[in-house]
Amino acid sequence: MTKLNVAMIGYRFMGRAHSNAWRQVRAFFDTPIDPVMKVVCGQSPSGVAQAADRLGWEESATDWQDVVERDDIDVVDICTPGDSHAKIAIAAAAAGKAVFCEKPLGNTLEEAESMLAAVRRADVIHMLCHNYRRAPAVSLAKKMIEAGEIGEIRHFRGVYLQDWIADPETPRSWRLERARAGSGALGDIASHSLDLARYLVGEITEVSGMLETFVAERPLEDGSGRGVVDVDDAALAMLRFQGGAIGSIEGSRFCPGRKNYNRFEINGSRGSLAWDLERMNELEVYREVGPDSGFRTILATDEAHPFVEAWWPPGHVLGYEHTFTHTVFDLLRAIDSGVPAQPNFEDGVRNQRVLDAIERSSARRQWEKV
Amino acid sequence: MTKLNVAMIGYRFMGRAHSNAWRQVRAFFDTPIDPVMKVVCGQSPSGVAQAADRLGWEESATDWQDVVERDDIDVVDICTPGDSHAKIAIAAAAAGKAVFCEKPLGNTLEEAESMLAAVRRADVIHMLCHNYRRAPAVSLAKKMIEAGEIGEIRHFRGVYLQDWIADPETPRSWRLERARAGSGALGDIASHSLDLARYLVGEITEVSGMLETFVAERPLEDGSGRGVVDVDDAALAMLRFQGGAIGSIEGSRFCPGRKNYNRFEINGSRGSLAWDLERMNELEVYREVGPDSGFRTILATDEAHPFVEAWWPPGHVLGYEHTFTHTVFDLLRAIDSGVPAQPNFEDGVRNQRVLDAIERSSARRQWEKV
Amino acid sequence: MTKLNVAMIGYRFMGRAHSNAWRQVRAFFDTPIDPVMKVVCGQSPSGVAQAADRLGWEESATDWQDVVERDDIDVVDICTPGDSHAKIAIAAAAAGKAVFCEKPLGNTLEEAESMLAAVRRADVIHMLCHNYRRAPAVSLAKKMIEAGEIGEIRHFRGVYLQDWIADPETPRSWRLERARAGSGALGDIASHSLDLARYLVGEITEVSGMLETFVAERPLEDGSGRGVVDVDDAALAMLRFQGGAIGSIEGSRFCPGRKNYNRFEINGSRGSLAWDLERMNELEVYREVGPDSGFRTILATDEAHPFVEAWWPPGHVLGYEHTFTHTVFDLLRAIDSGVPAQPNFEDGVRNQRVLDAIERSSARRQWEKV
Amino acid sequence: MTKLNVAMIGYRFMGRAHSNAWRQVRAFFDTPIDPVMKVVCGQSPSGVAQAADRLGWEESATDWQDVVERDDIDVVDICTPGDSHAKIAIAAAAAGKAVFCEKPLGNTLEEAESMLAAVRRADVIHMLCHNYRRAPAVSLAKKMIEAGEIGEIRHFRGVYLQDWIADPETPRSWRLERARAGSGALGDIASHSLDLARYLVGEITEVSGMLETFVAERPLEDGSGRGVVDVDDAALAMLRFQGGAIGSIEGSRFCPGRKNYNRFEINGSRGSLAWDLERMNELEVYREVGPDSGFRTILATDEAHPFVEAWWPPGHVLGYEHTFTHTVFDLLRAIDSGVPAQPNFEDGVRNQRVLDAIERSSARRQWEKV
Repeated sequence: MTKLNVAMIGYRFMGRAHSNAWRQVRAFFDTPIDPVMKVVCGQSPSGVAQAADRLGWEESATDWQDVVERDDIDVVDICTPGDSHAKIAIAAAAAGKAVFCEKPLGNTLEEAESMLAAVRRADVIHMLCHNYRRAPAVSLAKKMIEAGEIGEIRHFRGVYLQDWIADPETPRSWRLERARAGSGALGDIASHSLDLARYLVGEITEVSGMLETFVAERPLEDGSGRGVVDVDDAALAMLRFQGGAIGSIEGSRFCPGRKNYNRFEINGSRGSLAWDLERMNELEVYREVGPDSGFRTILATDEAHPFVEAWWPPGHVLGYEHTFTHTVFDLLRAIDSGVPAQPNFEDGVRNQRVLDAIERSSARRQWEKV
Repeated sequence: MTKLNVAMIGYRFMGRAHSNAWRQVRAFFDTPIDPVMKVVCGQSPSGVAQAADRLGWEESATDWQDVVERDDIDVVDICTPGDSHAKIAIAAAAAGKAVFCEKPLGNTLEEAESMLAAVRRADVIHMLCHNYRRAPAVSLAKKMIEAGEIGEIRHFRGVYLQDWIADPETPRSWRLERARAGSGALGDIASHSLDLARYLVGEITEVSGMLETFVAERPLEDGSGRGVVDVDDAALAMLRFQGGAIGSIEGSRFCPGRKNYNRFEINGSRGSLAWDLERMNELEVYREVGPDSGFRTILATDEAHPFVEAWWPPGHVLGYEHTFTHTVFDLLRAIDSGVPAQPNFEDGVRNQRVLDAIERSSARRQWEKV
Repeated sequence: MTKLNVAMIGYRFMGRAHSNAWRQVRAFFDTPIDPVMKVVCGQSPSGVAQAADRLGWEESATDWQDVVERDDIDVVDICTPGDSHAKIAIAAAAAGKAVFCEKPLGNTLEEAESMLAAVRRADVIHMLCHNYRRAPAVSLAKKMIEAGEIGEIRHFRGVYLQDWIADPETPRSWRLERARAGSGALGDIASHSLDLARYLVGEITEVSGMLETFVAERPLEDGSGRGVVDVDDAALAMLRFQGGAIGSIEGSRFCPGRKNYNRFEINGSRGSLAWDLERMNELEVYREVGPDSGFRTILATDEAHPFVEAWWPPGHVLGYEHTFTHTVFDLLRAIDSGVPAQPNFEDGVRNQRVLDAIERSSARRQWEKV
Repeated sequence: MTKLNVAMIGYRFMGRAHSNAWRQVRAFFDTPIDPVMKVVCGQSPSGVAQAADRLGWEESATDWQDVVERDDIDVVDICTPGDSHAKIAIAAAAAGKAVFCEKPLGNTLEEAESMLAAVRRADVIHMLCHNYRRAPAVSLAKKMIEAGEIGEIRHFRGVYLQDWIADPETPRSWRLERARAGSGALGDIASHSLDLARYLVGEITEVSGMLETFVAERPLEDGSGRGVVDVDDAALAMLRFQGGAIGSIEGSRFCPGRKNYNRFEINGSRGSLAWDLERMNELEVYREVGPDSGFRTILATDEAHPFVEAWWPPGHVLGYEHTFTHTVFDLLRAIDSGVPAQPNFEDGVRNQRVLDAIERSSARRQWEKV
């Protein structure tokens, strides 16, 4: 079988999730190509060496520029914070590598556009990792929508709620600094709702957005005083879609009790669908309009459901990290077939355009075209 | 015990619900005044006579002006469609009667303001019937918020979703005509979410609204052709509250499977609350932040819960119409004590101001002050 | 319309629920006969007079023997504790009255049999009040089973769990004394699961039962010391049904957090049904076997659902006491038509035979035929 | 770090789950010993070679006797069907290997006892794989019970329901043959409920059991006719525990819509706990008795919860196979420390004694001591 040498840049939260996907994909899926976990790259020599050992990479390295130019590397997987995505992806594309990039594509629309231009210029395979598209229940929702099972879509309602900074004394992490994170709840979590909206419903044409920072100042992590929070604590937007549907998305990290409440509901002319990441194996479906109908809970763990056949018998639930394994499986198929991966850098740019319009709308206090 | 003679104008859906409340209140509650169901008034002589017999009214009548001026009437209960609320309420107030009015107060802000002026001028007791405030679980939520159990409020998220016109071939009822209904989902159901927002969180200072009509034309009910729908099928708005909270409300009658899904979630700095009319006896509460916390479902049927002691032992659930009985009980207490009822015509005007701002905002495509 | 004069014996918990049914039935249902709430009877002259006033009875009385023999009384409604059911019902039947009796029919099988003999001898209409059969969602389950929608039934799993005596220091009420209550959880609540089992699945042929008293002694209610608990705190039984199905029932008042958790699940060869009194408006249904199937929640509030047309539009939930109103409506139809009511005293005897077999089985530690 | 060479016998469903655990444990947990996936053993040379490649084993082999005697093997992991557990485990123990055996320990009590005798004689580490004990929510339930959070336990109610043979035309698999499977639903799934009962509540002293075969004959898998089903389709039992609690367990594969519904509820004097494998990340807990209490849903994904720190941030759910990884992690700790693993072969024998008593009780139609 063809071998594919992978280099991963970054090894923290997302690096662990991506490593797991590379490690697991061949044990469960009939991959057309066999990925080799060649090298992991990070700034701290000891940290990255330990990560290589734990996560299953053959080598470790500290200079990402060297790594992305190595002749023996076929694909570069970018798991660093958002502020370094652009430079790494552009260099990797220039070196002719397939590029797999964790979301968000870039921290700004400009970065995202330059990244898309780079992969197009180099004519390499590119994929954006929006992992929730490949929770089996979400992929099943997509299939049902495409098959017309809920008719013409009227409403999308997406929220992504967490609670980890609800306490004003929680220290200011890098995720609360605009310079590093780009934005707050908007780019971190509302962007997931947005990507699901585009995946499941279609392109967004205009938005009315609202950003709010509840806690303007927090203790610094090193205990040396207090620092300004210059990103949004919560982001809301109303949306209009190309096809005539309307919708809303919201992200907030100020919702006590909501740990990872990435939920959407979609209403069509003939049915409805709802999903919640905290119960990610379940899809709630309303069809067959009538008095004896009602929302049913499909436990999306049947071999007939997307990606499930590779795993366990019906009723044996999957977890968070499986969504990355499915994404990597589809990346391998794209590389093998040459058919563009979904979502790719173009989706990244489109997502970024909507986020950008939300920020503009919030500042100008009016609707904005995307 | 003091007797109180009641006249009710209108006897259809709301008339049946109000009649039930007048009939039941004394059987279950220790009322300070004993209501007498004196007369029900409607346009059709045979219809209203039959209603009087079925619903328990001593007499029936067809001329509301006569009725509201009768010397033996103490309180006028208005259950007609919204377009006649103003004239009846103003006449009743002028005649010195206590006025109990089903929501919305009027079809326009101007009507609502004239009604408030009338009851103030006449110095009579006035109450607006927003029945969901008195579902025991909602009243319990109010108590918890006032006791500070969820801290400072950050988010209100309210939706009221139904599905009865999702099918484009459902005929155009009076609720889809602006001349009679005033507005569509906005005034009919989103207004309930709005009233709960004001009740539980506080006054709203500005809004960004969005109205949408998905189906512009429908079959007429008499089969004589098709008629224009000139109200909104769906209404969304983002909100800012006086106290610093932000929120959203939405009403739609295009959500298959949602029968009466009047749901809110409130997030505070120390906890969260959620409620859904379809499971109206339950309050979902998150408190005691920590790893072993989680949303708990309080079955609000304990004698310690608001209004419940009058009914059944713990675990014996109440239904929709009980909320009206609770409202009437509190109206009787207001009349007896002279302490203003809540919500009253001032709430009606304030609600109407927000709805008005949402319509303006939708037209102008920008945020509007209330 | 024909009038029907009703006398009710007993006016506490069940008396309030039955009174409500008599008062409400005509306001909502098209009854073939018009019930008149003639007289309520109880031991305390002042107590029963007050009850008559509050609950809507024309007169009050203290001598039940006089009352059941009054010429102007057509139906006797028995709401006293179980130890007096037999004597009242037998006298009422002898006097030619229709007899409506709250469950359990009697405290012993012998009592129940003598009551059945009495109503048969007198050839009067008789009905046992097992109200949960007429929760709309339960009646809907019955319709689905009869229509073959879940195929041949394999399993019935019923529990009725409460928590009001989980604390060992809760005083000993009359419900914990065998002389007055007959039995504990077995007759009080497991009997409801049993009646639903017989209603929905069919006759029971043999049982293996288990009774347990966790707290043998409790404080007396008057504070004068401690008294023995001589009834079961919990009752379990495994069952075999005539048609080949197997099942289990359980009643316990020692389950913290379960307020009125009367739940069943039924599995057939082609589907499953589940219901829970705490969410009494919902029926959980699994049909259309296949990967995209799943349990659906039917909100049994549509006009197409049993009894619902009389009440409110879809999505407006009913409460506990509505089940009694539905029972009284069907009693009126039975009296009018002469067609036997369901359930009746024969059901009461059959239920009692199963309870009796469970007690025998528990004592002999082996399976017993019913 | 010390290395530990592992041999696994059998590579189908359980073999895939165990392989995954061996592969994943080091990537996520700080293991005291480093397992080496040395050799996998199976009957088909090509099948086992392919399994070795996919599942990550260094070598494959076909003769289990050779494998368990290899000097370089430290632990033998038994994943074959139940009828070969005894001979493999006894040989492995005799060869001085640590033995890790998938449940059930043996197909009969005699086999289980001989296995326990063998590991005791050889003084080797032994562990039985009852993986559901180590779902984080179940381990959390155990911690809460041990901390006295729900008081003295009164009730255990366990069911394990599936639906894969509800259709009478589903072919007869090896799981429906007594000679290979030992028993039907009893040993396959009710045994999981039983193990959880013993883990969470304590030892069982007597039982009343009931076995039922609904479909006596089924098509053979090779299409050559029909074959007899000589195992139970459903198994129920009532239980008495040493500490005074009572309970019930049930297993059935005839429950349409229940895919892997392994659920228990435990009621104590001060609280209750419930869990369901289909929502395995959630623990339902009732504590703090009072009107504003209610069952809360703990999402057991916090770093404070058992095993979770090794995985992802709060709210990122785990799946079925993680329970095996946790089991293997604890096996490694037992091997390293010499402290006996839990559950071990003694638990296997105790479980088997209860299953045996259920079979006897079912045959004799009476309660049986364990």
